[in-house]
Amino acid sequence: MKGILIALEGIDGAGNTTQAKLLSSWLKRKGFKVILTKEPTRGWVGKLIRRRLKEGRVDANIEALLFAADRAEHVAKVIAPSLREGAIVVTDRYFESSIAYQGAQGAEVEWIEAINSFAPKPALTVVLDLEPRLALSRKHERREVFEEESFLEKVREILRRRALEKGYVLVDASKSVKEVHVEVRKAVRHILKKLQSF
Amino acid sequence: MKGILIALEGIDGAGNTTQAKLLSSWLKRKGFKVILTKEPTRGWVGKLIRRRLKEGRVDANIEALLFAADRAEHVAKVIAPSLREGAIVVTDRYFESSIAYQGAQGAEVEWIEAINSFAPKPALTVVLDLEPRLALSRKHERREVFEEESFLEKVREILRRRALEKGYVLVDASKSVKEVHVEVRKAVRHILKKLQSF
Repeated sequence: MKGILIALEGIDGAGNTTQAKLLSSWLKRKGFKVILTKEPTRGWVGKLIRRRLKEGRVDANIEALLFAADRAEHVAKVIAPSLREGAIVVTDRYFESSIAYQGAQGAEVEWIEAINSFAPKPALTVVLDLEPRLALSRKHERREVFEEESFLEKVREILRRRALEKGYVLVDASKSVKEVHVEVRKAVRHILKKLQSF
Repeated sequence: MKGILIALEGIDGAGNTTQAKLLSSWLKRKGFKVILTKEPTRGWVGKLIRRRLKEGRVDANIEALLFAADRAEHVAKVIAPSLREGAIVVTDRYFESSIAYQGAQGAEVEWIEAINSFAPKPALTVVLDLEPRLALSRKHERREVFEEESFLEKVREILRRRALEKGYVLVDASKSVKEVHVEVRKAVRHILKKLQSF
């Protein structure tokens, strides 16, 4: 069995990080070799993005290109080598986050797709779907430029539309952490069975 | 008359910077409002690229995305506003430099074009064509990772091929600075006449 890439997407506060950790622990307990990773990365481009975003809003096209540059490094240094070694790679955010966030800021969705065309497609993308108001109430502090409710509404709409178009698994993230984890596991089990049957 | 964008391209040492300055001075003497600009810019992404390139070679895709991000800022902050004000914008390097340099490093030319699709097309692109050996002998010092002869051969080939495909003006840059300037002026005069006749 070759490596498998799984992406968890969702608006800030939807629980991606928590669910990525739970999924990764579960897969490890099942005996898989698992690499848990996230975007933006801790690499030099990722650090630059975090630093720059703290200073204020950036033009949507520039932001999309910088996130893609960080992703190119992520793919080259972590994702592609891990997949070659046959690991299950669980990434907390991937290119759908770019499409949704920079798309909501006004960048063209088709263009964001094009600039990310180097990135391997995940075998499974799970979108954690949550009302922005609930997502915001879960966060301890308000961060960066991301978290206005109306902006997150747009991000959510793009994520939901893309899930429908691309056949991603949409999970209701208003449920408890445990219930959501069970849903995520179900989707992963399904994809593992499907891949093994080939 | 609306603004006009003119790009000067060529391998390192072909004389872009010198010719961009001469062209800009000539146009100013003719009474035009001229903005002389260059890439990579002195903006925050441009600075990052320069710093990072000094540390050594970067993956071609990452480099292409970063140059495009710098260009997005260049367009938003300098090129587009100057064109709106009716200026002639002379840029020392533009997206053909990305296509040639990152293309020579292995990035796909069509993809580099796609990631730069936000950038307004110049009314005129002049490619200063020079043998890498001559270009290298003109440089006072060897800089960065760019300047190996065989690499510059590839860059030159892409520039020449693109000039042919896209109808860019190819100028023999082995001539004297003055002779090259006369050729560049000729191309610019031609485009100014053409634009005024509409």
